Amino acid sequence: MAETRRTPGEIGCGVGATGLAALAAVLVLAVPALTRAADTLTGFAPQRVRGERAIEARLQALPTAAAYRRHLEAIASEPHVAGSRANTQVAEYLARTMEAAGLTVERAVYDVLLPRLNPVSTAALVTPVRLPLNNQEYVLPEDPYSANPNLGPGYNAFSGSGDVTAEVVYVNYGRREDFALLRQLGVSLIGKIAVARYGGNYRGYKAKFASEAGAVGLVIYSDPADGGYMAGIPYPEGKTNSASTVQRGSLLTLDYTGDALTPFLPAFTTDDPRPTRRLPIEQVALPKLPVVPLPYGSAIEILQRMRGQAVPGGWQGGLPFAYRVEGGSELTVHLHVEQPLGLTRITDVVGTLAGAEFPDEWIIIGCHYDAWSFGAEDPNGGTAMILSVAEALGQLAKDGLRPRRTIKVAHWDAEECGIIGSTEWVEEHRDELAAKGVAYINADVSVSGPHFGAAGAPTLKGLIIAAAGVVQHPDTALTVYQTWNPPASKAAEPGIGDLGGGSDHLGFYSHLGIPAAALSLSGASLYHSNYDDLAFYARFCDPRFEYGPTMARIDGVVLLRLANADLLPYDLGRYPTDFALHLQALRERTGHDSTALQLTRLDQALGPLREAAAAAVAARDSVLASPVPSPERLRAANRILLGLERSFVLPTGLPGRPWNRSLYMGVNPFNGYDAWPLPGLRHQVETNQLDQVAAWEEHYVKAVTDLTGRLQSLTTELANPASH
Amino acid sequence: MAETRRTPGEIGCGVGATGLAALAAVLVLAVPALTRAADTLTGFAPQRVRGERAIEARLQALPTAAAYRRHLEAIASEPHVAGSRANTQVAEYLARTMEAAGLTVERAVYDVLLPRLNPVSTAALVTPVRLPLNNQEYVLPEDPYSANPNLGPGYNAFSGSGDVTAEVVYVNYGRREDFALLRQLGVSLIGKIAVARYGGNYRGYKAKFASEAGAVGLVIYSDPADGGYMAGIPYPEGKTNSASTVQRGSLLTLDYTGDALTPFLPAFTTDDPRPTRRLPIEQVALPKLPVVPLPYGSAIEILQRMRGQAVPGGWQGGLPFAYRVEGGSELTVHLHVEQPLGLTRITDVVGTLAGAEFPDEWIIIGCHYDAWSFGAEDPNGGTAMILSVAEALGQLAKDGLRPRRTIKVAHWDAEECGIIGSTEWVEEHRDELAAKGVAYINADVSVSGPHFGAAGAPTLKGLIIAAAGVVQHPDTALTVYQTWNPPASKAAEPGIGDLGGGSDHLGFYSHLGIPAAALSLSGASLYHSNYDDLAFYARFCDPRFEYGPTMARIDGVVLLRLANADLLPYDLGRYPTDFALHLQALRERTGHDSTALQLTRLDQALGPLREAAAAAVAARDSVLASPVPSPERLRAANRILLGLERSFVLPTGLPGRPWNRSLYMGVNPFNGYDAWPLPGLRHQVETNQLDQVAAWEEHYVKAVTDLTGRLQSLTTELANPASH
Repeated sequence: MAETRRTPGEIGCGVGATGLAALAAVLVLAVPALTRAADTLTGFAPQRVRGERAIEARLQALPTAAAYRRHLEAIASEPHVAGSRANTQVAEYLARTMEAAGLTVERAVYDVLLPRLNPVSTAALVTPVRLPLNNQEYVLPEDPYSANPNLGPGYNAFSGSGDVTAEVVYVNYGRREDFALLRQLGVSLIGKIAVARYGGNYRGYKAKFASEAGAVGLVIYSDPADGGYMAGIPYPEGKTNSASTVQRGSLLTLDYTGDALTPFLPAFTTDDPRPTRRLPIEQVALPKLPVVPLPYGSAIEILQRMRGQAVPGGWQGGLPFAYRVEGGSELTVHLHVEQPLGLTRITDVVGTLAGAEFPDEWIIIGCHYDAWSFGAEDPNGGTAMILSVAEALGQLAKDGLRPRRTIKVAHWDAEECGIIGSTEWVEEHRDELAAKGVAYINADVSVSGPHFGAAGAPTLKGLIIAAAGVVQHPDTALTVYQTWNPPASKAAEPGIGDLGGGSDHLGFYSHLGIPAAALSLSGASLYHSNYDDLAFYARFCDPRFEYGPTMARIDGVVLLRLANADLLPYDLGRYPTDFALHLQALRERTGHDSTALQLTRLDQALGPLREAAAAAVAARDSVLASPVPSPERLRAANRILLGLERSFVLPTGLPGRPWNRSLYMGVNPFNGYDAWPLPGLRHQVETNQLDQVAAWEEHYVKAVTDLTGRLQSLTTELANPASH
Repeated sequence: MAETRRTPGEIGCGVGATGLAALAAVLVLAVPALTRAADTLTGFAPQRVRGERAIEARLQALPTAAAYRRHLEAIASEPHVAGSRANTQVAEYLARTMEAAGLTVERAVYDVLLPRLNPVSTAALVTPVRLPLNNQEYVLPEDPYSANPNLGPGYNAFSGSGDVTAEVVYVNYGRREDFALLRQLGVSLIGKIAVARYGGNYRGYKAKFASEAGAVGLVIYSDPADGGYMAGIPYPEGKTNSASTVQRGSLLTLDYTGDALTPFLPAFTTDDPRPTRRLPIEQVALPKLPVVPLPYGSAIEILQRMRGQAVPGGWQGGLPFAYRVEGGSELTVHLHVEQPLGLTRITDVVGTLAGAEFPDEWIIIGCHYDAWSFGAEDPNGGTAMILSVAEALGQLAKDGLRPRRTIKVAHWDAEECGIIGSTEWVEEHRDELAAKGVAYINADVSVSGPHFGAAGAPTLKGLIIAAAGVVQHPDTALTVYQTWNPPASKAAEPGIGDLGGGSDHLGFYSHLGIPAAALSLSGASLYHSNYDDLAFYARFCDPRFEYGPTMARIDGVVLLRLANADLLPYDLGRYPTDFALHLQALRERTGHDSTALQLTRLDQALGPLREAAAAAVAARDSVLASPVPSPERLRAANRILLGLERSFVLPTGLPGRPWNRSLYMGVNPFNGYDAWPLPGLRHQVETNQLDQVAAWEEHYVKAVTDLTGRLQSLTTELANPASH
């Protein structure tokens, strides 16, 4: 918030310490060439601001619609699920492109547990009529990709294998509370096939809860009330789910992320001399229940034949009849799933542009590249976008404007099956990342429309807001910031969410305590369906291929500021404010009469944190205003800055989730998606274990006190030049 | 709130001033025979409380399921729309029954403007296919009434006549804001047939707004999202709208209520020697647009063939496709309506039980009896219920327990076509009612299920709460009050709503300023359809015919307390509190930064009102605790009490609604249903005429000051026995 982010199109112009020749070109681009009395940038010495702005202007000029489109078409023209030959070809394209851009490319390979390709996954009515149910998208004349012979029917990765025929019970979204209500209503799932609609939680929990309730199978279908015709005109005329659109997806619900056989360890390949330890598969809590995903055009055949009592309030979906809880004995459904698992080789492709001054401070941007089908929107808009970032940064480096810190551009494999590629890489590089990781920016599904949004760690919020303020939105005369938080909104700043589960930031943020964020320009999605192809993308996500380059500019500015600042430009003031807000929200969840959630000691610990954060911000600003400190002093201060967020890492992890170690932000373990701020305390509140609160308060007091101490050291370091 | 309403089943036992013999029977019923130190009843001298409780116990023993059912079957076995021969037979049954019960019966006849019976009302697709659209309910084997040959297709009373074929535009609920959004979207209604779904406003406004927008016709249909399968299993298996359920109803939107030709005047019959003045029909703003109501099983044929752009957010209904705004040129619909209007004789049937001591103080309970078809639920559950009340009161009178004040039991005709019967009667008796009217209780649609609810004037709220506390709920061991405001709810008291538009209380409450309330036990409704018959009623509304007698007991207690109290038991303390709440809500509607709604003078006027109300309550309670005042003193005090609410009557009426004269509570003139508290001010806020606020504030200050003065007179009257 220290930056002049409310001024649209501010592109200062000047010459920095390096790359004088390259900046000749910049001067042409920089319009209007404003001179401004006090242009500031958080973490930058005043004399370096104009240079940084010039570099950013140069970067912004590099991404083009043509290149973005070329990348996306190269990546997303064939279905390329993890483990497939097509996916290996994508990896090669990514590596070649980054090498050509001047990055050093690492191919990190792992052997991980994956389902075999094209598993058997079928559903059919048995009585009152025999009726096989379609579970693959229709071939559409409007969409030539839909006829690709390498496409297959929908399935859920890590489904149990089995062959069952049984009556059905509708379980709404299959959330914890839905199964609780069924128990209250006296409806038994034992021996039944549960029918759940997508939405409300991570699909793996639908299977877990159904299994625990005694079901022998599960159908998960896409209800038209949750993204189908109730939300707009279906594909191909419109962009909502059609009657044949199937959502694929993983069912893993282990208490750790990544490869199921190697918790906490990198899944080195079987021919790698480095040792790893694989669990016997029998010891891994994999789903046993056969699960088949269906589109609503097929689910209707089951649901409209149900004959039991009407559903409770809120359970009705968008199909044209009153939903019922039980199917009755005259309706039976057959599910058949064969899904053998085996070790499969996956490849992360990581490009590195080593920092010119501080190579041991890493800023990482990443996006997975494996996809359930073509992946045009999920994830490869993001893939093509970070390739554009890599090319732009590579070009700057070739022009002598190499970043001061190291920037890595990472393409993760096998995210769709359980966030596997990034997790294995994080586990392999755990110590190095803990020592060097400045920030992780996740680009999964980051280019699908015109609407900017972000979620992330408090320390990165100011930077995101500032970056959005200097990039033009391609649809209007406004900056991205202005479309995000229009003057009419009257909000002091736009809302930036918390990072939940479901993508590759988890290893960095939740496991290692590296500040992370996800930024996106979003719009349309036919989530995890075969229609997530270039025809859909060009029609509904980014028709002019301009949102991709725009997103590359925003992320590029974020990376450059993190890489080039004299002192890491974390938004330090938000540590105490955001923490206090989360604490307040947690108290409100327990009701006003709770005495168990006093948390007096934690409240007391926040006072010093507030003071220490304010002092550190002031010290950072003032030390930069004086003659630029020596590189040694900057290095020492940045070392402290880089370590701040690690205060939140509890080595033993969260309750029941040892791999998730950030005390600051976790994932709701009962639905797998929602962010849970202060998850150690939140877990006790949600599970009504208020007697555990005191012990967890101690962990939080320690973390806050540790962070306070680090901030105080930073202030001392900055205030006392004599120490070097 | 002064009463011991939290004690379940409290039936005190004792002997009052009259009817000693009759009370012998009561003693048997009164279990347990509690003696209580300080049993009090608002408005009753202490020595009269036990007698009143005994009378109430006696009344409660009289209504029976058998009699209630017999009445309902006599009334609702044939369709009996206003003006039909069957309806005349119903009127005769009502008159006979009340005469037999000992009431003096008046048949008040009027000649009013009504559509002829069985008008032409058809809709059909013309292109792309010729397809007549069904607009009458299916004959069902489960419901013998559905085959009654006197049933007809759905129509909307006071539709324009016409024969049009045109393209269609979907207008959502056809609210003011829906048409405004269409204008914003650049969608023209000119020359088009509008298709609106029921809900969101009074149907007459759909026609008015469509007509103003240039439409040449209107279809109004029942969307399954608004009371069809989305809300539960359809009729006959369940109680929601089926694919053939049509909602009938009037379209009148005049700026006065009642007969269209005789605003403010009683529509005396053409052979009545008393003069009246009828407007030439050309001078009456009757709807010109042809309007046809359809069930969703027919509307789907139009809606699924539309081809234009997707609808805005919130416009999607429950049919299984994405709704569109425009139909396009390939889809045309034909509407044909022939609905000649003419003078029709209607009959109100009003029974009177003259008061033993204060015959010039009237308490009125009323319900219309005309119906769109059988009317089992709307309104005749209420009709049979107030017949039960009449019989119980008549029996008490025969037993020597005649009420001290006059009670009238009124059966109104032609409510469905525009609240006509009650309005004409009110207009005929305007001066007498203004002088004598203590309270009006409306019983329209008051018996359709187990759930108690109420809406009404502040002064009647305490009485309603108290009455619900002494009547047993037939489904449980609890009182009605306890089912209404269960201990678990933690609410200090149950919510009692404000009276809006749409029924017979309007003449009394809004035109004359007589405190009014509506009480009901509600549950199921197939609103204004042919299925509102005894088969539906017995299955889903009141299967054991017990809710009817229960409702009769509650209303009976309310009437008796109003009739027998020494001083009228109005809840005086709520005048200032409710007024202040409404004022606060009004301020919140204008936003926090409004300076136009300061209303300082009105705020200042509320202070003295608070004091005067508190003083009056104290005076009433203390004067009754001393030796009973003389009848003359009581009469004088009651005269003041009875006049209090008239302070709110503004003779010139509300903005644009001269007939609606209560400044305290009005009807939203843009949707016809919602209650608008403080309607004079509310109108200025809603229409953004804030420059008018000051003038209306003056009206309110005068009303509040007038009410304050009346309360002060009351206190003086009660404190100063020397005045008599």
